[in-house]
Order: sequence, then C-alpha cells, then structure tokens
Amino acid sequence: MSPQPDPASASAGPLADQLFPAEPTQRSIARELYAYARPLPIISPHGHVDPALLADDEPFPDPARLLVVPDHYVTRMLLSQGIPPGELGVPTRPGVRAHPPAGDGGYATETDGRAIWRRLAANWHLFRGTPSRMWLEKTFAEVFGVTAALSPATADEIYDAIAARLAEPAYRPRALFDRFNIEVLATTESPLDDLGRHAKLAADGWGGPGGRVITTFRPDNVVDFEFDDWRDNVTTLGTITGEDTETYAGFLAALRLRRQAFIAAGATSSDHGHLTALTLDLDRREAAELYERGLRGDATVADAEAFRAHMLVEFARMSIEDGLVMQLHPGSVRNHNKWLYTNHGRDVGGDIPQATEYLHALTALLDSYGNDPRLRLVVYTLDEYTFTRELAPLAGGYAALYLGAPWWFLDSPEVLRRFREAVTETAGFYNTAGFVDDTRAFCSIPARHDVARRVDAGYLARLVAEHRLSLDEAAETIVDLAYRLPKRVFKIGESLG
Amino acid sequence: MSPQPDPASASAGPLADQLFPAEPTQRSIARELYAYARPLPIISPHGHVDPALLADDEPFPDPARLLVVPDHYVTRMLLSQGIPPGELGVPTRPGVRAHPPAGDGGYATETDGRAIWRRLAANWHLFRGTPSRMWLEKTFAEVFGVTAALSPATADEIYDAIAARLAEPAYRPRALFDRFNIEVLATTESPLDDLGRHAKLAADGWGGPGGRVITTFRPDNVVDFEFDDWRDNVTTLGTITGEDTETYAGFLAALRLRRQAFIAAGATSSDHGHLTALTLDLDRREAAELYERGLRGDATVADAEAFRAHMLVEFARMSIEDGLVMQLHPGSVRNHNKWLYTNHGRDVGGDIPQATEYLHALTALLDSYGNDPRLRLVVYTLDEYTFTRELAPLAGGYAALYLGAPWWFLDSPEVLRRFREAVTETAGFYNTAGFVDDTRAFCSIPARHDVARRVDAGYLARLVAEHRLSLDEAAETIVDLAYRLPKRVFKIGESLG
Amino acid sequence: MSPQPDPASASAGPLADQLFPAEPTQRSIARELYAYARPLPIISPHGHVDPALLADDEPFPDPARLLVVPDHYVTRMLLSQGIPPGELGVPTRPGVRAHPPAGDGGYATETDGRAIWRRLAANWHLFRGTPSRMWLEKTFAEVFGVTAALSPATADEIYDAIAARLAEPAYRPRALFDRFNIEVLATTESPLDDLGRHAKLAADGWGGPGGRVITTFRPDNVVDFEFDDWRDNVTTLGTITGEDTETYAGFLAALRLRRQAFIAAGATSSDHGHLTALTLDLDRREAAELYERGLRGDATVADAEAFRAHMLVEFARMSIEDGLVMQLHPGSVRNHNKWLYTNHGRDVGGDIPQATEYLHALTALLDSYGNDPRLRLVVYTLDEYTFTRELAPLAGGYAALYLGAPWWFLDSPEVLRRFREAVTETAGFYNTAGFVDDTRAFCSIPARHDVARRVDAGYLARLVAEHRLSLDEAAETIVDLAYRLPKRVFKIGESLG
Repeated sequence: MSPQPDPASASAGPLADQLFPAEPTQRSIARELYAYARPLPIISPHGHVDPALLADDEPFPDPARLLVVPDHYVTRMLLSQGIPPGELGVPTRPGVRAHPPAGDGGYATETDGRAIWRRLAANWHLFRGTPSRMWLEKTFAEVFGVTAALSPATADEIYDAIAARLAEPAYRPRALFDRFNIEVLATTESPLDDLGRHAKLAADGWGGPGGRVITTFRPDNVVDFEFDDWRDNVTTLGTITGEDTETYAGFLAALRLRRQAFIAAGATSSDHGHLTALTLDLDRREAAELYERGLRGDATVADAEAFRAHMLVEFARMSIEDGLVMQLHPGSVRNHNKWLYTNHGRDVGGDIPQATEYLHALTALLDSYGNDPRLRLVVYTLDEYTFTRELAPLAGGYAALYLGAPWWFLDSPEVLRRFREAVTETAGFYNTAGFVDDTRAFCSIPARHDVARRVDAGYLARLVAEHRLSLDEAAETIVDLAYRLPKRVFKIGESLG
Repeated sequence: MSPQPDPASASAGPLADQLFPAEPTQRSIARELYAYARPLPIISPHGHVDPALLADDEPFPDPARLLVVPDHYVTRMLLSQGIPPGELGVPTRPGVRAHPPAGDGGYATETDGRAIWRRLAANWHLFRGTPSRMWLEKTFAEVFGVTAALSPATADEIYDAIAARLAEPAYRPRALFDRFNIEVLATTESPLDDLGRHAKLAADGWGGPGGRVITTFRPDNVVDFEFDDWRDNVTTLGTITGEDTETYAGFLAALRLRRQAFIAAGATSSDHGHLTALTLDLDRREAAELYERGLRGDATVADAEAFRAHMLVEFARMSIEDGLVMQLHPGSVRNHNKWLYTNHGRDVGGDIPQATEYLHALTALLDSYGNDPRLRLVVYTLDEYTFTRELAPLAGGYAALYLGAPWWFLDSPEVLRRFREAVTETAGFYNTAGFVDDTRAFCSIPARHDVARRVDAGYLARLVAEHRLSLDEAAETIVDLAYRLPKRVFKIGESLG
Repeated sequence: MSPQPDPASASAGPLADQLFPAEPTQRSIARELYAYARPLPIISPHGHVDPALLADDEPFPDPARLLVVPDHYVTRMLLSQGIPPGELGVPTRPGVRAHPPAGDGGYATETDGRAIWRRLAANWHLFRGTPSRMWLEKTFAEVFGVTAALSPATADEIYDAIAARLAEPAYRPRALFDRFNIEVLATTESPLDDLGRHAKLAADGWGGPGGRVITTFRPDNVVDFEFDDWRDNVTTLGTITGEDTETYAGFLAALRLRRQAFIAAGATSSDHGHLTALTLDLDRREAAELYERGLRGDATVADAEAFRAHMLVEFARMSIEDGLVMQLHPGSVRNHNKWLYTNHGRDVGGDIPQATEYLHALTALLDSYGNDPRLRLVVYTLDEYTFTRELAPLAGGYAALYLGAPWWFLDSPEVLRRFREAVTETAGFYNTAGFVDDTRAFCSIPARHDVARRVDAGYLARLVAEHRLSLDEAAETIVDLAYRLPKRVFKIGESLG
C-alpha cells in the first residue's frame, strides 16, 4: 500500500496560502485563522452523495467515472465549448440514441475512461479560474497525492496514478470518510425511498439518529404535481405508509409517518426544491380541493404552484411538531437546455437560475411562524442580487430564518467572499448556517469545505487588518462558521425522535 | 466634571486606521486624505433626531434607553436570534399586552436598563462585522471615553461609566452638539407638526433659516391615503392652515402654506417616503377626482398609488417655486414583520426592502423637470442592484437628479465602498449628495459620519495608488464629499424665504 | 513634423502602473502579464467608427470637435451638472432651435471649438474617477504627447498642442490606424448603406474580406416596426436588392442578399440592438402576418416586439447558412431624456439601461440552436445584475453562446474587473468574447483596449498571487483575452464568402 498523502503536507508550499489575500498583513492573519479551522471535522449537513456508496463500501470505478462523468459542472463546461456529453461518457436516457446538436446521425457514448480523461486534459484551460479546477486539483493532490499539473502530456500518468490508488483498500469510501475527517454526512432521499441503505449503515454502526451518515427528507416528488410520475408517487406513498393518499388528510398523515421514518434514520432536516419561494397558507378545504384536482389530473400550472406553496407552510407546521429543520432551495429552472434533457435527462448540467423574489413570497410562512423559535428555516439562493436587498434583512429580522451558504453556481471562492461582504453587515455571522457542500461528488467534499474555510479566513483577516474585529473574536468566529454553527443550526448530533 | 475624551486621541492607536485598506501604500494615502476630512464640521442634512432633544436640552436617560431600546438595528438583530423586543425594553403599542412569538401567555416589558444592557452584552457576538457594532463602539470610546470591549464581564462597568457621564452637564444634547462639531442638523417633521420646538430653538439662537437646527418637510401622512388617520390628517391640515382641504385646490394651497412655515423654520428640503418611485403627471381634474375619492373613502389601492405618484410631480412644481430640495426614499415595505407590528407598532425593525425600479417610474417627473436647474431631486435606494443599471446613468444624465447616500440597511462600510465603486464611473462624485446619516440616534452621528469619511478616504486612496487620480484632486474631493457637496446640494446655510 | 510620442514611453513613470493593484506582489505580476498584452495588435470586432474617416483619410477637425462634441459620455456628464449640449457645440435636430431646459427663449449652438474646450476644462473635476477622464488623458498623452493636466490654466495650451498635431500628416486617420497597431477594425452599417466607403477602402487595399477595415450587418432599421421610417426603409431595401419586400418572403430574400453584400465587404458578424432579449420562433404564416400588419401600419406594440423577437431566430438560421456571428445588444431604453431628444435627436446621451431578462427571453433561440456549433451568438448586457444569475450559467452551458465585454455604461475599469470576478467561475475565460470597444471615438480606441488589458492583467495577477493559476497559464490567458479570443470568436481574418 502506498503511503497516504497527508492533506496538510500536500498543502504545504505555495498552496498553503491558496485563496488568502496577497497583501502580507492579511495573509498572515488569514494563515493564523485558517490554522484554527483546518483540523476541524467536516459537518456536511446537506448534499447528494449516494448512501449506497458508504453502505456497500465498494471500490470506486475508474478516475473518469469517478471525477468526470457524474460531475455536471465539468460536463456542462465542455458542452459549452462544443464537446457533447456523450463523448464524455454521460449516458443517454433509457431508449434514446443520442443525436448531435446539429445535423443528423447519432453518436456512440464514450465507454473508455482513459479517452474521457484525455478529453478533459485537452480542454483543461477551459477551467482556469473556476472552482471545478480548484476542487479537482485539490482532490488530485490531497486525496490521491498527485501533484503534477493536468495536461495532455500528463493525462495518462495522472489517470494511472489515481486508478492505482482506487484499487487500494485505503481508497474505499469508508476509509476515505475517516481520512476526510467527516463527522457527519447527510444524504438526501425521497419519501418513497425505503431507507434500506441507511438501515444497513445503522446496522454497521454508521447511521441512525446521531450517526455519522444520516438522511434528509426531500418530498418534492410527492408534493409537486408537475413532477414526473407524481400521480404514481402518491399512490406508492400510500402503499408504503398504509395511509389513504387518495385524500388530502391521508396524504398529510402519510408524510408525517415518513418524516418519522426519516428521523429514525437520523434525519434532522427536510429539503424543498421549488421553482419559486412562494408560500401560501390555504385553509384546509382549499388545500384539499387543490390536491383532489391534482389527483384527477385537472390541476392547472397555477394550482400546482399554489399547492407547492401551501405545502411549505404545512411542512413548517410539521417541523414545529417533529423538529426537522426546513431547507428551501428556490430559483432553479430545471432542464432549460432542452437538447441536453432530451438526450441525457435530468441533473446533467441543463438547469439555469432565474431571478428569485423572497420578500413577498415568504410572507405567508413568516406571518405565521417567522418569529417562532421552534421553527428553523434555512433559505438558499441562486440569485446573489438578493443578498443585501432581501435575504440579509429577512435573516437579520426573523428568528426562524437562516441563510444557507451560496448554492451551486455560487459555491465558488469569489461568491463565498461576496456573500460575507454582503450579508454580514445586516445579518451578522450567526444568522448564516455554515458551509454546505451540496455535492454528489464524495471525493470533492474536503476540497469544497477547505475552500470555504480559506475564503472565510481571508474575509475575517480583512476585518481584523482593518481593525473591525479583534483577532480573538475572528478565531472564535471561524470555528463557529466551520463547525459549531452548521452543527447547531442543522441540529447535527441531536436525536429528534 | 471628568475630562472630556478627545475624539482624535480616542482614535489613536490601531483604531486610527480603522476601515483603511490594509495594504501599506493605500493605508498611508488614506490616512493623509482622512486628515483633511476629520476636522470638518458635520453637515447632517437629513435625519430623524427629535428636535425636542435640542430644544429642551434635558439630560439623556440611562445607557440602555439611550443606546439600545430606540435603536431598531440593534433590537431586530437580537429578535433574529430569538430575543423578543419586550425583553429589551421596547414598549408595546398602547393597550397591547405583548405575547411571545409562539405559545400563549404574555411577557412583561423589561424596565430595568441594566438588565437590558446585560442582554446586549451577552449577545454582543451577534454584531460582529456589523455597522451597529462599529457605531456603538465608537460612541463608547469617542463620546464617552469608554474603551473596554463589551462583554458580560464588562457590561456593568461600561453601563456605570456611561451612566455617570450622562449625569454631567457636558453630556447634555447641546453640549454634545457643540463637541460633535455639527454645523447644521436637519430634523424631519410632518406638515401637522406645529414646529414649536423649532420656534424654541430659533428663540435660543439655534434654529430658523440659516440656523444650526432646521426642519424638513415630510408630507407622507397627508399625501398617502393608506396612511393611518389620513382622513383626519387632511382635516387637521385644513384647520392649521385655514384652507379648505375638502377640495383639492385647498389641499394644495394648504401644503404651500405649510411649506412656507417650514421654510421659516429653516427647512431647505422636503422628504418623501413612498413604496415605489412612481411619478405621474395627471391633469388637474384627474388629480382632484382621486383626491375626492380618497376623502370619500372610495379610493382603491391603485388610486392611492396614483395620487402619491402625482403628488411627487406636484411637489416638484412647488420646489421650483419655493426652492425646497426634494428627497425621495422609495422601496421600504413597512411592517413586513406582522408579529412585531402587532405587538410593538411602527419603526421598530419590521420593515424590509423590496426591488425598486427607477427608470420608468421617474419618467413623468423627469420628462417635465429632469433637466431643470431650478429643481434638485435627491434619490435614495434600499436596492443596491440598481446602482449601475439605473441610478448612476440617471444621475449622470439629468441635471436635476442627485444620488443620496446608501440608505438604512445599506449605510454600512462595505456598501458605502461598493456605492462609490459602482456609481462614480458613470455619475462621478459630483452627482452624489454627500453622506446622510438618516438617524434617530443622536449620539451615533459623529461615528456614522466618521465611518463614511474613512470609507471615502479608502476608496480615494485606491484611485490614487492606482494612478487614476492625483493626491491633490483626491484631497479636494474628500473635502467636497464630506462637507461642501452636502452643503451645496441641500442648500444648507441658504435662506429660501 | 514633431516627433511622434511613443505610447510605451508616454506610459512610463507612474502611469506605467495605472490600474494595477497597489499591493506590490500583485502589481509586479500584473506588470509582467501586461507586458505580454501591451504589444499585441488591436482587434476591434465591434464599434461605430465612421468608415468615411478611413476611406477619405482627411485631417481631423479641431480638438473640441474631435474629442468633446461627438462624445456623449462627456456631454451627458456636463448636462447632468446643468451645462446644456448646445453650449458644447452639439448640433440641434434639423429645423429645431434649441430651447433651454427651463424658461423661454432659445440659445445658440456654440461654434467656437476653443470655447467648448474651455468649458470642458472648467468642469474637468466632474470626470474624476470616470473612464471618460482616463480615456481622454491617455489620448492626450499617448496619441498627442500632451502630458499636462487639463485645467482652466492649461486649457489653451493643450488645445493648441492638439490642434497643431492634427494638422500634421502623421495624425491623419490611416496613419493613426497604423500607429495604433490596429489589425482589424469593424464598423457598423445598416442594410440600406451602399457600402461605398468600404468599396473605397477595399480598392485602397484596406477593406474587403480578410481586410483591415470591415463592416458589420446591423438590420434594426428594417426589422423594427417602431424605427423611424421603417416603412420607407423596407421599400428602399426592396429597391436596393430587387426583391419584393412587400412580401415576407421577399423581405427575407432581400436580407439574405444584403448579408452577402456585407460579407463581400468583409463582414464577419451581424449586430442586433433590441429593447429586450426576447426571441420567438413563429411559424412562417404567423411571421408573414405580423410583417403584413407592419406594412399596413396596423401593428401593435406587441406585434413589433414579436416580430423583432422572431427575426432573431430567423437571423440565427441565416447565420448557420452564411456564417455571420450574431451579436445581441439588449436593454437600452432609447431617448429616455425627452428634452435632449427633442432638441438634439438620437445618440447624444439620452439612453438609459433597464433591467434585462435573458433566461426565458432566449429560450426559443436556444431551444433550436443553442448547442449548434455552427451558430455563434455573442450576448452583451447593460445590466450587470445578470452576470452570475443568468449570463454566466447560459454561456457556460450552451455551445453557441458567448459573453460580450461589458457594454457602454459598463465599459469601465471597475465593471471590467467585476465582470471577470463574476463570470469566470461559471463560464471560464473561453466563453467570453474578448474586449470590444464599441466606440465612435477613433482616437480613444488604443486607450480603451489598454484599459481592458490592464484590468485583465490585474485580475489575473490576483489569481496568480492567490495560487489559483500559474503564471504561465495567466500569460497565455491574457494573450488569449486580448488577441486570440476576439479573433476566433468573431472569425476575424476568415473569409465567409
């Protein structure tokens, strides 16, 4: 077995100062602050790692299938320069033979990991200045001990080195989990999931309430009439729970039961991915009528929106009962890239953000529960042009509201910095929820958290250097941001059951 | 009597460089520029200090009632972390027994200033990185000579030190006004105010045209049909002026008379707080019909909006006649936090900004008077995402338009800096109106102006260090921004009568 | 003949570091990177220089008529401080006697270049911190060898020095073109232009496909029903082409013919200035009906918008056939300043940006051709509050889409920097199209490109100093941004015919 790279030493040399301000006084303070944050365990309260990965603990596939094919940040950038996803091994939808963006004919999906890797290497310049580049390089160096710069000349050497590591026991998921110093990782499942992998993890001492791998309750596929197979999903929900989901009352009862099952599998939060942040508090009869129209297939687009909006308030009530922290992810227009969706389906890089309004949209929920200390609502955004106008004033004025970390297109060094510069003055640090990686890419988790810690160190160093915060306070703050706040806000380590 | 702290020496040591860029070249230039601005008198052309404070010149109450209870920046932050305003001494609305955000029962309003102060100290970390923290610390140090850091351990010591000072004659409002080096302070009154305090100030040699304390004409409560008691207010307006406010013509005549009375009390500007920036130039008959619907209680929401919008153009015409500078403050959704409003009423931290459109909204006014050198319209924003797109192009292209300083949630070091970085390139410095503190908190006035001067010094220092402006020009500019521009734009020191 | 100033030596001394970060490490890297970019030829793929300038190669008029009168950045700033354009020599519309913004009477248009120049000098402080100031000072120094600071005291001296230079053969347009190291300059013409100046340039060895001065196809005046004289314009289009523009089919055929003529005159791109970014893909019959309503004068505002939107998709189809790169410039509300328009007409500083939506607006075009490698669509914005939310995700996810340089009010150092900071993380460098000067002011072209190169050097220097990019990569990138990318994206040097 090859020696395992020590992340600390891999970061020595110039990369030890990566992302810190170049100005020496601030850099020196940033180093000092970062030293407090670096050894802290990782709290990953929200993300999309497949729990099977850790339940089964099988070796990872080849480097391309691990690091390129499933990473839509990477494949969408290559598509933007004319390299279709099929050439990168992205599978087509079942039954679809991929056709190129222009002209006739089809093309075969690339199956050779090395060929995919070489394509990445040949186009590596496209990623200059992007977080994808930084996450991948840090993964190469700090997870796999590979410090050569990727290029056509080094592509094979790096591929082989990573492939060799992946064959070793020390590179199995659970071993990496330990090495990554992850304290808790939350995955995300739908109410229709049988939570079997989480049961396996619990049986192995890895899961369950207060466990290392926990789940998150994400009910979009039974709440959103416009979701593929929604009608079948609510039927299945009834079957799973034994409740009569042909009625609204039964539907709510079924959701309550599934929330209990999720809590038993360690969940401390729910998550809601909606097109807008709209909330509505309909009376029981109205909500039931909407639901029935949904069941009959008579619901309009406005009905679907109203029902989703109402369910957010319903879920807030359930959260007050059972303690799950609510997360709201609005503003993603799904499958905007039609060609991509037609050929390759969902979640492959075709979503684009739209402008998001929070102030009026959240009114119904906030009117009822905005100051209620029993509710905790973490709001995310893809629209940074709401930071100072809406999000910071809301989070700095309502007890229930917290700001989630910059999300997705915004989970990058420059935006992480702008987020702090924009929201701190009105919401402070303690109405933010700490860093959330929100990733499917297990191996990138340490890199993503490290980037966030470095950016926070740089921001705090500026406050210290400008005599706006004492060094002691900054040191306490960075530990709060990296560790204590996410743990507290997401109730990590607490048993809700 | 204890020796009075000298603001200059209180700022010595590390705080002498507070907010200046850490990079040594820029810091050194910033120091040099700030040295020009620091000794300049304060021009405070817009704010909400109670004129009774200076007319009566009574001692201030205890430290909590001076610095915590009335400061909704502070109480809203504490509410956002679950501390209800009643526990901070914020009074409930008349006849209301405050109920907590969740559950039954009520709670008594805290009446012990020391207990309130200890609550602030116990939660002082919430304010890290906020302007509230900076203003309060500067107030402690530079007004009261208290340099200990606030914490539970020091809470009583600081409370006692400030309380002792407040008992001294040198800490009466007029003595502080002198010590703060305020040249002119404008308060804000409604047309229904009898201006009695300003008469008292004038009698004492402090007020009247060209005086040290002047008023501002703020007619929202007689212009906005949706204002509490609007119907009664216009009746009162008629009584005060002897005009028949049951007709639109009489209403306009009454407003003109009150403007003359305000001018006689030193006013050089009016101020208009509207939900949007909409302006409309209706013909006389249409406007009169709207007004009559308002009087009859038949006005729709749209009617109310149209009447407010029309009145802005009407006020522009009056300004061209009588010389009052117009100020427009749009975009605040009042009382968004319903629980807070129900329990504690207006102006206690429950307002939130909304997106604001200026380009089309201001068209009616600008079409008529936008290039008229006799009109001066100072526009503010709570929506920084209009700086480069609308505000700077408008101010840099219309003779009548000036940009007010970043307002309220935006009156913070980071936004003051972003404001300069965003608007200067299109509007220059000379279409901005200088810093406006807009505060009720009399003791924070020097701190707020000092922060703005420091941020401007830092911004200008960057321009000098990047060879974009000569040091001489930067020195002239900072004096203009801190002193000459607000004086000129707001006609301070001019007699309009 | 006086010695010609060497731009390099004119930039020596402190100005050699202009716009570079003050922090020494970054400044040193910025210098090194800039040294790669400085000697590169200028590619100017989009702008509004009059081709007659280069075709006729006549001496320029006096300094004021060269540098003040036609520069609406300058005249609008002076208007914003009460100096009407007539006093700056801006001509009135034919038949209009300019009236002042307020009051009666008229005023004569200033005809004395020296008087105009003195007015500029007397108000030079208004331009502190603006790009206009920087461009003009660089033009004085680097084009005319005049390094004295403009002021009332130096106004005449500088005027005389520039006037003297303008009389020399070395200051004729073609000589300057050579000295400016311009490789290719694209002008912009309407389909009704006879391209005579471009024919003259081709005859002189300066124009035509692959030439030094090329044209751009800008069809707004025949596509937009709301354009002045639209009806006459389509008739003229028919006359020029011999096609029957009384039918939609003939209209399309005529446009295709004119595109071929433009390609023969060297065009590699078209340009489309629309109020919004809306695209629609109507069926042939619908489009024809809209066109017919336009011809009959029956078209509504919505019809005009729909037809413009549809034509963008039609032009995308033509681009796929003939290879012209499409440019889209949305979001400018033309002639917002009515007084200015009434007195002085179009393009004199009265346009203001409005909020621009791209995501939904571009859907029709992107659904059909967004991933098509045969299409290239360069999108610009006047609304920087779309950078991370819409523009970067779109450019980083569609093969056909590129981001144009910050436009107009945004073509300034601070926004050029914010553009890189905002879009690079999601779109990288290689989905941007390189700097575009978009100017009418021929003498400012080197200054504008130099500013962009300096800002990019500063941005890249930060990435290097923060260990986010290697120096070698940064050096390659700055050459790409300054030279290779605009050449490739705009197909400069390619013959489409």
